[in-house]
Amino acid sequence: MEDKGISTVVIKRLPRYYRYLGELRDNGIERISSRELSNLMKVTASQIRQDLNHFGGFGQQGYGYNVNFLYDEIAKILGLDHKHHMILIGAGNLGQALANYENFEKRGFVIEGIFDVDKEVLGKEIRGIKVAPMEEIEPFIRRHNVDIAVLAIPKASAVKVAALLVDCGIKAIWNFAHVDLDVPGNVIVENVHLSESLMRLSYNLVK
Amino acid sequence: MEDKGISTVVIKRLPRYYRYLGELRDNGIERISSRELSNLMKVTASQIRQDLNHFGGFGQQGYGYNVNFLYDEIAKILGLDHKHHMILIGAGNLGQALANYENFEKRGFVIEGIFDVDKEVLGKEIRGIKVAPMEEIEPFIRRHNVDIAVLAIPKASAVKVAALLVDCGIKAIWNFAHVDLDVPGNVIVENVHLSESLMRLSYNLVK
Repeated sequence: MEDKGISTVVIKRLPRYYRYLGELRDNGIERISSRELSNLMKVTASQIRQDLNHFGGFGQQGYGYNVNFLYDEIAKILGLDHKHHMILIGAGNLGQALANYENFEKRGFVIEGIFDVDKEVLGKEIRGIKVAPMEEIEPFIRRHNVDIAVLAIPKASAVKVAALLVDCGIKAIWNFAHVDLDVPGNVIVENVHLSESLMRLSYNLVK
Repeated sequence: MEDKGISTVVIKRLPRYYRYLGELRDNGIERISSRELSNLMKVTASQIRQDLNHFGGFGQQGYGYNVNFLYDEIAKILGLDHKHHMILIGAGNLGQALANYENFEKRGFVIEGIFDVDKEVLGKEIRGIKVAPMEEIEPFIRRHNVDIAVLAIPKASAVKVAALLVDCGIKAIWNFAHVDLDVPGNVIVENVHLSESLMRLSYNLVK
């Protein structure tokens, strides 16, 4: 898909615009000026204009932005306009928390399989899905056309499991293990390193 | 604490250096050259030299970096050289996952109280801590000198709870609710917006 030459910095800000536009839409608001959006989001109106002018969707001076149009355009750019097939690896507390977030599914990220090595959780149902053993990952990925794997397992096993996922042809890994995964360049890794986030907080607390 | 004029970009990279240096230290490695560290971390040796030269701790040409020294210096900058008193609000799956991460405590982030509104979890013990009702937050914060509150509650109640925490004199909020908290400038907020992370992954998948 073409991304209209939008810079990485703007792309990074899109999820936040998407969230605010979604809330406006849910509240029945059809259009909003850059100044109103600026007050709401606490960024300058000029940044909003610069960011959102990539998408069109704003009419004549004084009309403001068309909320629905912008919301849909941003959804397309972020790949939220179609369904993603996901598997979750690791059915511990974190894995269960992720499986139970209803908002992911609402946005098209559907967990279709859950896998673990722990005999304690095997067979347990989480949101209607039975936790299956790791040996079933490979056929499952191929059969269900899974594009995203969520890794909610300890650091020690994450590297090995990531290699297995790459062999199965996974396209993207959402990695919660606190380790850098060494995967081929065509496999996308998005890390959530919670301890690094906590260290940034701590830095700001003592600086 | 003085931060020796280190730029925000370098600060953002410090937790990753800290992790690699900690692993080297745990493996008994006492010194490492910028080239070896470069191979390990997959960043250029010149960036490593630029980043780490802020801290000293490297001797003559050919000696390399003193792992322990650098590890300790970075810990000080990140505020990891002393204990942080934390409370956790929200004892659902995510809250329980956070409470059970042993690494946070090892790095000095100690959860001392857990609070929830849900009668189902009140009184339940998580890592030896009884989940207490929200009314007890205020005296608890003052009595235990709590500096960090972890917000693992739904978006709908997060804003109200954040306001209560600010009134209690909290210094920092680690916010997992998918909402922007409006707090005074002296209160630090570090957000973990999981759906935004998932959207970035999705963007990279479709772009």
